[in-house]
Parts: sequence; structure tokens; C-alpha cells
Amino acid sequence: MALQVQIIGVRGMPEVRPGDDLTALILAAVRGQGSDIEDGDVLVVTQKIVSKAEGRLVDLRQVEPSPPAQEMAARTGKDPRLLEVILGESQRIVRQERGVIICETRHGFVCANAGVDTSNVGKGMVCLLPENPDQSAERIRVAVQERATGISIAVVISDTFGRPWREGHTNVAIGVAGMSPIKDYVGQADPQGYVLRVSTMAVADELAAAAELVMGKLSRVPVAIVRGFDYRRAEGSARELIRPAERDLFR
Amino acid sequence: MALQVQIIGVRGMPEVRPGDDLTALILAAVRGQGSDIEDGDVLVVTQKIVSKAEGRLVDLRQVEPSPPAQEMAARTGKDPRLLEVILGESQRIVRQERGVIICETRHGFVCANAGVDTSNVGKGMVCLLPENPDQSAERIRVAVQERATGISIAVVISDTFGRPWREGHTNVAIGVAGMSPIKDYVGQADPQGYVLRVSTMAVADELAAAAELVMGKLSRVPVAIVRGFDYRRAEGSARELIRPAERDLFR
Repeated sequence: MALQVQIIGVRGMPEVRPGDDLTALILAAVRGQGSDIEDGDVLVVTQKIVSKAEGRLVDLRQVEPSPPAQEMAARTGKDPRLLEVILGESQRIVRQERGVIICETRHGFVCANAGVDTSNVGKGMVCLLPENPDQSAERIRVAVQERATGISIAVVISDTFGRPWREGHTNVAIGVAGMSPIKDYVGQADPQGYVLRVSTMAVADELAAAAELVMGKLSRVPVAIVRGFDYRRAEGSARELIRPAERDLFR
Repeated sequence: MALQVQIIGVRGMPEVRPGDDLTALILAAVRGQGSDIEDGDVLVVTQKIVSKAEGRLVDLRQVEPSPPAQEMAARTGKDPRLLEVILGESQRIVRQERGVIICETRHGFVCANAGVDTSNVGKGMVCLLPENPDQSAERIRVAVQERATGISIAVVISDTFGRPWREGHTNVAIGVAGMSPIKDYVGQADPQGYVLRVSTMAVADELAAAAELVMGKLSRVPVAIVRGFDYRRAEGSARELIRPAERDLFR
């Protein structure tokens, strides 16, 4: 039997609204297409529907831009209310050039606009990242376990980030539960006995990227099941994927 | 039928040597495990075996370090012969700090040590990136097409790169043939009619990352078949994934 990982897209999710029981919607959609969640699966859920279920939406008409947001708006030509929201989600502006604002979010993620997003949320509204994406992942993990008795899964909350040096965005993990997001090869040797050059793989990011292959941006597939990947069961946290400033050559 | 992408690891590859017919070895291994390559598949091949087949190996005992390499060795404590090889593969040193040398390779990739690698190649030897990874990918693509009549596939050559801000490495595409490495959403709208925030996805990098889930670092799975991914057929080139300096906030 060949070594195989399957990525199963979950279609048929309804529009998610604040207060919805997201796990119930996911399980219904999975079962509605004749699939099921199995022990050892990794459930990858896009940030957008998690944020919507958690009510992380802001109506820009109710935002009063502060003087720093107004000043930034004058410099960039962007909506001062949107900038106010972005600044509120940021602990630091990393770069601000050519109309792009790279922020370090309150969680520590480095991404454009602190993850604040205007697409797929309706006119005048913006969507923020979940308050605590690890907790969001853990809530889904526990709820799946309670409702599908006897199975243990991992959950990854994914978002779409750009990156330096390379064109195009990729999906990465911003929340993790039930698995170690890093596969650690420290001290392990290759078949010739040499210690490996690469010591850690960001498998949670690779899972998020793999899931994106069935999700796309317009196909309304906000959830994917990754089956057959041999991960290390652990509490897990996407914080493990954030490089501390003292180890980062690019801050 | 659920939307599904399969990632099939290819086991049973022999140790690859300079001059080997890599496509023949891959096809034999694929068929040896009862799999086959099908029309529309993406074949992901790790750089290491491509470089070995192409003879991109250097014996450090035959390297004469130049004065710049010797000076760098004195500063970093690294092997001056290895540094000579790294400098030869680089068009620019991007950062050099805390024992890490981030280079821009002659191809334009930004990565540690210009992709020069000491693992899995035997004592005293180092392995370079393929001279032209797109051409390497194209050669495999054409050879598969010739030997498995009537099928059209895409090929991605993958390597393991680190990245700023985030811990852990991920696999990315350094060579592409038969597909567009970027999925372009420019001008497309979400269901509410809003133009998408994210306009381009680096699907070739996501394919490389997905393939890594079955490859690992020690399991001798240097090839994976990705089946069911709906890519855009095109000549393709990993150069499309290199962000030009004028669009990059981090050079």
C-alpha cells in the first residue's frame, strides 16, 4: 500500500454568522457530502469562518479614527477607519511602503494589515483575526471529540499570508490544537550519518498550504480534512511557529 | 463525490548517482509500488536527487578557497572551502549573522547557504542546486510524457527553505514545468461582489509543501505524486515565484 495523504475539501457550508455553532456546521457539511471525520485526521479551518462565528466583525461606520490613523490615512490615501482597526490589532508596524502595511499582530504574526480583511464579509464591514486562534482550534477539537465519540483529531486554523522574497501568498497556520506544529529532527542523522542541515519543519504551515489546494478563494470550501498525515499528538500552539525576535535576522 | 487531492509518496528509489536516468528510476519506483502516473498529476521531486543525477556534487578536498572565503571563514569559524562553494553559487549575500548566511542564489532564490547542502551526500562532498531547475523539471516532464504515452503532467522540483518571522522550514518550488506556479485571482470578486484582498496564490509552493507531508527528511521518499489538483497548464517557471527587488519590501 502506497504512503498516502488525502486532502478532502468540505463543501456545502452555509454562510457563517456570529454566534453559530461552527463545529456543528462543519460536521453537518462533512456528513452531508458523505464524508466523515476519522481518528487521526487534521481538520483545517479557514480563519474567516472562525472569525465570523466568533463575531470578530467590525462595522466601519462605527469606527472613530484616532489622530495616528488619520495621519496614516493622509500619507497612504487609505480609509482612516480601516487604519484605526488595523492599528488596534497591531503591536507594531513592521514596514509601511508602497501602499502595503506589514504589521505584527497582537498575537505576534507578521502579515499585511494585521489580518484585517474586507473580502467576503459584506459592505462596510471588516473581519479581524480570532482573538486567540489556538483557543478557537482547541474549542473545535474538543467539540468534534465530544460529538464523534472516541476519535482524536488535530485542528489547524489557516490564513493566507504573503512573504518576503517570493511572489504569491500561501496559507499558513495561525491556530493549532492537538498536534505539534513543528516536526523536530534535531540531532537526527541522514543515512550517511551526517546530522541533518534542516532541523525543524513547520508541518502545520505545510498542512495549511496543502488544504488550500482544495479550498481556493472562490469555491466556498472553507474546511478541509487532511487524512493519513502522521503528526505528533501534543497540546500544540501556533505560537511555536512565531520566531522570537532574537532568532530572527529580519526584524 | 468529495473534492479531493491525493498525495502519494514514492518509495523504493535507489541511491541516485551522477548520470542516472532519473525519470526511469522514478517511473520504476512508482510502478514498483503498484502506483502509476496519470494525466493531470503533478510530480514533485526533491532537489537533492535531481542535483545528484545531474552531477551537481563538489568534493571539498578539491576546492581552493579564495581570499574572500578565507576572510569569511575567519569571521564565522566555518570551513573556508564550503564558503568558497557557497560564494560561487551566490549573486549576493543578503544577511550574515549569528552563523547563518542568507544568500541570493544565481537563480534569484533567497535561502541559507545558497542551497549548498552537506547532508545525504557522503563524507567531504557537498551538493549544489541544479544549474537550471526549470530545465530539470522540463526534462522530467518531457521524459515522462514520452514514456507514458498520452499523458500530460506538471513537474515541481522542491527544496527546503527557511523564512523570516516564522519558525521551521517548509518545502517550496525551485523548478516548475507544465503548469503556472501562480494562481491568479486579479480582478475576481467574492460572493458579495468585493474584489479579493489576495490576488495571487503560490500554488507551486503549496504543492511542494503538501508533498513534504509524505516525504519527511529520513524516510527516503524523494518523490510524490499530487493527484486531483486543478492547475493551469502552461510552460511555467519558478522564476515567476521570485519577487523582483522593486516589489519586495525586504531587500
